[in-house]
Amino acid sequence: MKIGIVGLGLIGGSLAIDLRSQGHQILGISRQETTCQIAREREIVDVASTKFDILSDAEIIIICTPIEAIAATIKQLIPYLNTNTIITDVGSVKQPLVETCTQLWSNFIGGHPMAGTTDSGIDAAQADLFKGAAYVFTPTENTPATSIDKLKAIAISLGSVPYICDAQIHDRAVSWISHLPVMVSASLITACLGESPETLELAQHLASSGFRDTSRVGGGNPELGVMMAKYNREELLRSLFQYRHNLAQIIEFIEQENWLNLAQILQINSEARPKFLN
Amino acid sequence: MKIGIVGLGLIGGSLAIDLRSQGHQILGISRQETTCQIAREREIVDVASTKFDILSDAEIIIICTPIEAIAATIKQLIPYLNTNTIITDVGSVKQPLVETCTQLWSNFIGGHPMAGTTDSGIDAAQADLFKGAAYVFTPTENTPATSIDKLKAIAISLGSVPYICDAQIHDRAVSWISHLPVMVSASLITACLGESPETLELAQHLASSGFRDTSRVGGGNPELGVMMAKYNREELLRSLFQYRHNLAQIIEFIEQENWLNLAQILQINSEARPKFLN
Repeated sequence: MKIGIVGLGLIGGSLAIDLRSQGHQILGISRQETTCQIAREREIVDVASTKFDILSDAEIIIICTPIEAIAATIKQLIPYLNTNTIITDVGSVKQPLVETCTQLWSNFIGGHPMAGTTDSGIDAAQADLFKGAAYVFTPTENTPATSIDKLKAIAISLGSVPYICDAQIHDRAVSWISHLPVMVSASLITACLGESPETLELAQHLASSGFRDTSRVGGGNPELGVMMAKYNREELLRSLFQYRHNLAQIIEFIEQENWLNLAQILQINSEARPKFLN
Repeated sequence: MKIGIVGLGLIGGSLAIDLRSQGHQILGISRQETTCQIAREREIVDVASTKFDILSDAEIIIICTPIEAIAATIKQLIPYLNTNTIITDVGSVKQPLVETCTQLWSNFIGGHPMAGTTDSGIDAAQADLFKGAAYVFTPTENTPATSIDKLKAIAISLGSVPYICDAQIHDRAVSWISHLPVMVSASLITACLGESPETLELAQHLASSGFRDTSRVGGGNPELGVMMAKYNREELLRSLFQYRHNLAQIIEFIEQENWLNLAQILQINSEARPKFLN
C-alpha cells in the first residue's frame, strides 16, 4: 500500500519505520528539507518531500504534525488528493479535530496511537514504538466501514491494540487517565513550592519515590500540558470538578476524624487500581 | 555498645542486622516468642526475649513497634531502665510522639529512618536497608547534646544521611512529600471510579505510565494512609488546604482559557521538580 506520512518526528518517523519494514511504500512529508534528507538517508521512507504533490496516489495519509497544525495541513493537502484517500491523524484529543476534519474530508478518521517517549524529532524515531500500546480510532456514523477496517489492520500490524469508540468518549477517557493526572500532579508541586524556605529545603531532601512518582507528570513538558487543557478543555474541566469534589470529601473526613470512611475510600482504591494497570 | 531493639519487624530487624554486623550487642524484644526464636536462629540479635528485663543495661533502645504502640511500650519499659538510657523510635510522625514520650522519658529523641519496602515482618528484614536514606532526629531544647551525637553516629554507621530538626518541621515536610501525595493520588482514583461504566472501562484499557505513577501511593496500604492522617492530621490538613487553593487556581486558569498563566505554572513546576529528586 502507498502510505503518506505528514510530519516525520517521533510518531511519524516511528510509524514510517514499522510500516516500511512491512513492505508498504512510504511517502514522507516534512516542512524541513533537512528532515527529508535524513529520512531518505536512513531509509525511513521511500520518498520524502517538502511538497504535498507526492501524495496524490496515497491510499492512506497519516497526519503526524503537532495537534494545532492538523486541520490546516489537511486543508493544504486537499487539492492534491484523489477522493478515495483515507486521512487519519495521531492527535491526543479527538472531538474538536474530528468535527473540523470530517467537514474538510469525509473520509477522515481520528486516530490516537498511545505511545511515545520524552524525546521528539526524527532522531527519536524508532522501530516497534507502538507494540503493545492502545491505538484508538474515532469514526463517525458516516465513516465507511472499509476505511475503519483498513486502519484497524494497520494498528494490528504495528503490534498495537485497536479500540474503536466515539471521539467524545475517547476525550473523556484520556482526560481521566492522562490530562487530569497532569493537573493533579502539577498542583502538588505548586502547593509544595508555597512552603517556607527552611521546610521546603528539608522536604526536598526527604522526598523519595512517593513524591517522585506523584509529581512526575505534573513536572513534565509545559507546552504539552497547556495543549491538553486547550484542546480537551471541556472534558478536563468535567473531570477536575469531579476530582475537586472527591478531594473535598477526603478533607472533610480528615477534619471530622472520620477514619472509618477514609479507610473505606482507601480500601476501594487499593482494590480498584490494579484494573488500570495493563 | 548494647543496643535494645523493641519490635523485630522490617525496620527493627533490619536495624538489628546492620548494627550487629558492626559489633554492637543487640538485645531484641518481640511480643511473639516465635519471632524471638527466628531472630536468634538467624543471628539477627544476640539475645531475644518477650520480656523487657534484658534491656536493663542497654545504652540505646530503639522502639520499632507500630506508631500507636510507641508511647505505651515506653511506659512499660521504664521500670527496667537505668536513667542514662537513650530511647528513640522510628515512627513516621514526630510531633505528638515527642510531646508524649519526652514527658515519659527525658532522654527520648524522636527518630525517623526514611526507608522501607512494601513487605513487613521479620522475614522482610534485610541488610543495608537504610543505606543512602534520610534519617531524621527531632530533639527538643532539653535533649542532651551527647545523646544526639550518639544517634547521629549510628545513622551514619548505617550509611544513611542524618537530619536534625524540630518535630513540627519534620511533620510538615513529610506531609508535603509523603502524606499529601497519598491523599492527592487517592482522590484521583476515587474521581475516576465515579465515571460511567463504558468510559471507565475504556479509561482502564488506555491507562499507562502517567496514570500508574500518579495513582501509585493513593492505591497503597489503606491502614498506612489512615495512620498518616490520624497522627499528622493538623499538618496534613494545612497542606491539603494549600493544595486545594492551587488546584482551584489551575481550574480557574483553564476556565478562563488563561493559557499564559497555566503555562507559567507548569514551567515553574518543571524547573522545580528536579530539586525534589535526590
